[in-house]
Amino acid sequence: MGIDIGRTNLRAALVSAEGEVLASVRERTDVSGGPRAVEEQAAAAFERVGGRDACAIGVGIAGQCDVTRGVVLRGPNLFWPDVPFRDRLAGRLNMPVTLRNDVVMATVGEWRLGAGRGCQNMVAVFVGTGIGGGAIVDGRLLEGASGCGGHFGHISVQLDGPRCGCGRKGCVEAYASGLGLATRARSDPALPSSSLSRAGIDGAAVSQAVEENDALALRLRDEAAAALSSALGSVINCLEPRLVVLGGVVMDMPGLYERCARGALDSCLPSHRSVAIVRSSLGDLSGAIGAASMALDPL
Amino acid sequence: MGIDIGRTNLRAALVSAEGEVLASVRERTDVSGGPRAVEEQAAAAFERVGGRDACAIGVGIAGQCDVTRGVVLRGPNLFWPDVPFRDRLAGRLNMPVTLRNDVVMATVGEWRLGAGRGCQNMVAVFVGTGIGGGAIVDGRLLEGASGCGGHFGHISVQLDGPRCGCGRKGCVEAYASGLGLATRARSDPALPSSSLSRAGIDGAAVSQAVEENDALALRLRDEAAAALSSALGSVINCLEPRLVVLGGVVMDMPGLYERCARGALDSCLPSHRSVAIVRSSLGDLSGAIGAASMALDPL
Repeated sequence: MGIDIGRTNLRAALVSAEGEVLASVRERTDVSGGPRAVEEQAAAAFERVGGRDACAIGVGIAGQCDVTRGVVLRGPNLFWPDVPFRDRLAGRLNMPVTLRNDVVMATVGEWRLGAGRGCQNMVAVFVGTGIGGGAIVDGRLLEGASGCGGHFGHISVQLDGPRCGCGRKGCVEAYASGLGLATRARSDPALPSSSLSRAGIDGAAVSQAVEENDALALRLRDEAAAALSSALGSVINCLEPRLVVLGGVVMDMPGLYERCARGALDSCLPSHRSVAIVRSSLGDLSGAIGAASMALDPL
Repeated sequence: MGIDIGRTNLRAALVSAEGEVLASVRERTDVSGGPRAVEEQAAAAFERVGGRDACAIGVGIAGQCDVTRGVVLRGPNLFWPDVPFRDRLAGRLNMPVTLRNDVVMATVGEWRLGAGRGCQNMVAVFVGTGIGGGAIVDGRLLEGASGCGGHFGHISVQLDGPRCGCGRKGCVEAYASGLGLATRARSDPALPSSSLSRAGIDGAAVSQAVEENDALALRLRDEAAAALSSALGSVINCLEPRLVVLGGVVMDMPGLYERCARGALDSCLPSHRSVAIVRSSLGDLSGAIGAASMALDPL
């Protein structure tokens, strides 16, 4: 089975060896409760989808992970100190746990069972509360020195750009993630004349306002598309993938995907423009499906 | 033997199986003469270093290469149309030729015989007339879909930055390469009061002016360092290497390396800051040595 612990939603799925989802749940992640509360949630979700029938658990989590030690590292995402989440959960559920970054798991899902099936060189970028992704290089997951590769959200596209949660300026995550869009909307001088001023602002509210042709929301969407296009162009130039898979709830914002796909092709090197850019095909379960697949068959 | 065809210099080296340089030559690349003139130059250099004693030739060239077809692709660097350089040179010298991008070869050189020996996850970035590099991922060269991976010079660090030779805005190559520095110096309003106004401007002239504490040159150096730091921070976040090797003649500019190494660590994710950043150790022969190594023992 797979558990996908994002900053906003926690999803769990019981998945067959063929990749079929047999049962799944989704709820808000109890971020404010910290590691113990999330561990409780994961254990409860495990029971609810019939995790006892599984032979192994994969967990994807919104944070940098030290793969060797199974530790979620102190980072900008969940605001946890270094937590040995893998071994804690494995001990509690009495089942082996494989731990990775949430969108690395989603990348594995799209690669093995989704839009990237059969591709040996691909990149996946997921735009949700944060932005992250993963890469398959010559048929193998790019892990990096300690399993932390693929943090495409922390490509800076503007030296003097908005401050990101990681401390740096101009990261694409600060422009285009759900959190980044909300922060930018809140501090924009045009907010009072926008429909966004009426309620709590998050990524979904910005999406909704785009739908209603709100001027501020449209501008934020276009700035997000420009930042994503630039970051994707840079990733394509660095890794020369054959395929780029774009996913995450923010990608459902009207017009965003089309602008990003076109913008990425316009900004990469002419020799790299044969790259295919597609939508993810597993939807919001790509992370849980990928985690389950990784637990069953580690890379 | 290895031949390194940069946009400014062509270097050839006869290298022993242990990596010892037995003979070498260096001359200006006849860029204006086009592919045929460069082919002549390569053949002449081959004879001068005693290439007849070699068993294979590796060629690194400043351009995007299609590795499968052995073709130098139309691109921003040498301004060639698609040229089947590998087979032409192999036919002429009657010896197998292995073709790659010049700084990909230099990366292989530093990895196998230089500063990166024994490292399984490393990135090398070379700052010369242009900027490029390569990556070793889990002990294997990152090639990309057609051998064009590693174009780190074409990471954009500023959405509205200076126009790059590739057509895009804000590439780190437009800020920090020899060509980029020269272009920026020439169009700077402060040029008349700079020592740079006195002669032909190229990367070496900017380096010289930095040495003399020229205000314009110091500013250009600092802007180059900021751009390189940002691009390196992004590369570290994406690939999580254990080691970053910095090379190329522009890196010898006083104070540049130190600013880049510090800036890269400041801008990457906290979880990635254990990365080591070092100078290249093979100097200006890293490309030729890497090409020879690649010819003898392909990856």
